[in-house]
Amino acid sequence: MGNADKTLYTSDTIIALATPSGIGAIGVIRLSGPDAIALVNEVFYGKDLSIQKTHTIHFGTIRDGELILDEVLASIFIGPKSYTKENVVEISTHGSAYIIESIIKLLIRKGARPANPGEFTLRAFLNGQLDLSQAEAVADLIASNSQASHQVAMQQMRGGFSHELQHLRDQLIHFASMIELELDFGEEDVEFANRDELKALIFQINRIIHRLIESFEQGNVMKNGVPVVIAGKPNVGKSTLLNALLNEERAIVSEIAGTTRDTVEDEIIIGGINFRFIDTAGIRETLDIIEAKGVERTHEKIGKAKLVIYLVDPDQEVSEIGSQVEYLKGLGVPFIPVVNKKDMMTPEFRKEVSSVKYQESRSGAGNPETLTSDLRPPTSDPRPQTSDALFISAKNKEGIDALRETILQTVNLHAINTDDVLISNIRHLEALQKTEASLNSVLENIDNPVTSDFLAVDIKQALHYLGEITGQVTTDDLLETIFSKFCIGK
Amino acid sequence: MGNADKTLYTSDTIIALATPSGIGAIGVIRLSGPDAIALVNEVFYGKDLSIQKTHTIHFGTIRDGELILDEVLASIFIGPKSYTKENVVEISTHGSAYIIESIIKLLIRKGARPANPGEFTLRAFLNGQLDLSQAEAVADLIASNSQASHQVAMQQMRGGFSHELQHLRDQLIHFASMIELELDFGEEDVEFANRDELKALIFQINRIIHRLIESFEQGNVMKNGVPVVIAGKPNVGKSTLLNALLNEERAIVSEIAGTTRDTVEDEIIIGGINFRFIDTAGIRETLDIIEAKGVERTHEKIGKAKLVIYLVDPDQEVSEIGSQVEYLKGLGVPFIPVVNKKDMMTPEFRKEVSSVKYQESRSGAGNPETLTSDLRPPTSDPRPQTSDALFISAKNKEGIDALRETILQTVNLHAINTDDVLISNIRHLEALQKTEASLNSVLENIDNPVTSDFLAVDIKQALHYLGEITGQVTTDDLLETIFSKFCIGK
Repeated sequence: MGNADKTLYTSDTIIALATPSGIGAIGVIRLSGPDAIALVNEVFYGKDLSIQKTHTIHFGTIRDGELILDEVLASIFIGPKSYTKENVVEISTHGSAYIIESIIKLLIRKGARPANPGEFTLRAFLNGQLDLSQAEAVADLIASNSQASHQVAMQQMRGGFSHELQHLRDQLIHFASMIELELDFGEEDVEFANRDELKALIFQINRIIHRLIESFEQGNVMKNGVPVVIAGKPNVGKSTLLNALLNEERAIVSEIAGTTRDTVEDEIIIGGINFRFIDTAGIRETLDIIEAKGVERTHEKIGKAKLVIYLVDPDQEVSEIGSQVEYLKGLGVPFIPVVNKKDMMTPEFRKEVSSVKYQESRSGAGNPETLTSDLRPPTSDPRPQTSDALFISAKNKEGIDALRETILQTVNLHAINTDDVLISNIRHLEALQKTEASLNSVLENIDNPVTSDFLAVDIKQALHYLGEITGQVTTDDLLETIFSKFCIGK
Repeated sequence: MGNADKTLYTSDTIIALATPSGIGAIGVIRLSGPDAIALVNEVFYGKDLSIQKTHTIHFGTIRDGELILDEVLASIFIGPKSYTKENVVEISTHGSAYIIESIIKLLIRKGARPANPGEFTLRAFLNGQLDLSQAEAVADLIASNSQASHQVAMQQMRGGFSHELQHLRDQLIHFASMIELELDFGEEDVEFANRDELKALIFQINRIIHRLIESFEQGNVMKNGVPVVIAGKPNVGKSTLLNALLNEERAIVSEIAGTTRDTVEDEIIIGGINFRFIDTAGIRETLDIIEAKGVERTHEKIGKAKLVIYLVDPDQEVSEIGSQVEYLKGLGVPFIPVVNKKDMMTPEFRKEVSSVKYQESRSGAGNPETLTSDLRPPTSDPRPQTSDALFISAKNKEGIDALRETILQTVNLHAINTDDVLISNIRHLEALQKTEASLNSVLENIDNPVTSDFLAVDIKQALHYLGEITGQVTTDDLLETIFSKFCIGK
């Protein structure tokens, strides 16, 4: 449990609404703590809840004195067989804000305390139900809004890398204690810790850590989405293109009445991955990023993007397109050249615009491992699909599927159904990088004629950073930082 | 079950999200129908749900093929021991829109059908769990946002008047069949139905019905709130007053983090009753209702109100106030005269403004039974509380409590904790009025030397209208109308 004081959190009984506020058929109020069942029992009429089995549901009324607040279902979970490992009651009420508020107020009057954000999950962590990285994944899971972000969070919540890290850490602890023992013997020059075995272990750990560090870029994109900029001159059709990409998604989302989520206009899910369009407000106001006066601002915006959709139309001079392409190449962010209004272009324009050298330096741009373009090399074949540029009509929704496909290929995240363990949390990334550095320091010193003291210090550092990921090492500050980002009721 | 065809509704298995959409710790997906348990069992891993007891909760994962969609709790209710009397499963998921959507889509693919609004409650009605007026009360309960609206809905849901009406209707059915029997004997002039007993029963029914009809005004105000207009010249402080009334309520509402409901700026709860301020947008733009050019519009606005707060300030001429008061008296809506900015008034103004005859014709205004003013008669006592007008400072929040109290007294709804049975539904009101008319027609004919045919027809009419309230007589159209107003998932 590290430095965090468990009794600070788990001696009282907490209460919160676990379902969203708003109009719905039901609301669920959750209590956790030693008195959860007893507190609810005081105001529940119908059955004696204190003598019921765990994982059972009971119909009754909640009363404030004579006043019936609601007919409810009370679900009983007796610790440790619950999410928090404490006694838990979930009260399913009619979905009226007035009723929910009245019942929560009543139970607070009886002795419950309003829960802090994430406090149920914090208790689950403190009581050993979840390790820290799993607890963090619960918040990611709730926030997940695409197949990719869901997958990364689910993998992490179900143990993902943390069980493996914990196992390696246990082995490393063994070596640390051996080396401590050597220190106790001081001058005697004994060697309890087999240096070759230690080296083998560190190589093994480093291999795993390195792979996890490498996975961060993909994990991060899967969790947080891909920032995209649509660049182009005013009236080139940026807003129409965004709508064309958006419409299909909207149809899918609103397919099932009642589950429609708030449409966020600047987020589009393609192939299970969330693409976030930067400054779409600006796009709608036909902001022209490339033409923008301030070169710094342009750099800044495109610098935030992992992908640029460079949109042109047949009204533009091809020479201008050529120079803008050179500009984009220089920025080092992968871009997809798209010619809009293809129904309005002349054969001459098509030929000219296809002859622009879009691709050449792009393979060196961005992060080549995850963000390479697979657009085909330019050929003399006059068919549009062999050109570097995509030809679309945003208005007539032609070529949109091909663009979608190209977007996916360009970010190289086709295989989001990977079984590879990924990390997506910057806290984990930093801890892993520090672990790696400490272990490298061990490797540097292990064959040098230095005292074992340095080895011990570096191994302890590595143990510390590894322990931070899974929560064997925590501080109240760290827990506060992590759980304050949760919603209330989880 | 009347004319509605039960098998139309209950042969398949329906599914919907029962909790509000939005950010929350958990979501609850509800299924009802013969295959509810079997369908969930197909995608649930951890236990065989088909062999579990009713009212038990089971932890497991929902999987779409290999893909784990979520770790969930599945609550099993085996019909008829459920809300709908059918098999019901409630799946408690992590509160991610993506997860909820994925699970609902998966179960629809397996054979569930998206539920229509109110379809769970419709099934509860069709399967005899609730009568129709109780089913209607479920929607009212969910919509309830004040102590008063909650109380009216709860009373109705728990049986309220419907059990009583049903009992009386059963007795009336007895007489109807006796009179039918008389008709069978045709010319023989026998009398199976005791006319005195029938009269006594009708008197009894009419007494109850009359009391219920009378209760509608109070029931309606408790359910729908009191429409209020704040009238006064520009800059008299209408907006400041609204804020002063509002602020306290806001503080109460946001007391418990996580249960804050969306603040509707033009609704204020005083003494458990919802007061809806008409045209507050206008008020904020310092629209002056009394001074408004179009007298028709003024009439219309104040006509919608059940209460007018007439706000003046010390800058106004008292003679003008006097003529506006006369105007208000003529409109026939109860009004509360309020002098704002009391810290800025001279003793002369106070004396003059207190001498205006506010009250005189007000006892005859509006509906005297439910909306009488209890403001004290004018006296020569110079203390402000003996004046007809209230003196406040909206800015300094002085006199607001007294105003609140006066508002409550004026609408005469102090005793909202009444045990009296109230009706609040206009459909019930109309059915009761028609029942009363039919029964009065029975009473008119019963002692006249007419044939029994007329009696039988009128009694049947009365039975029909009574049956409409509780749902012994329904049509698909009626059910459609009632349940389409429900939210999905209930």
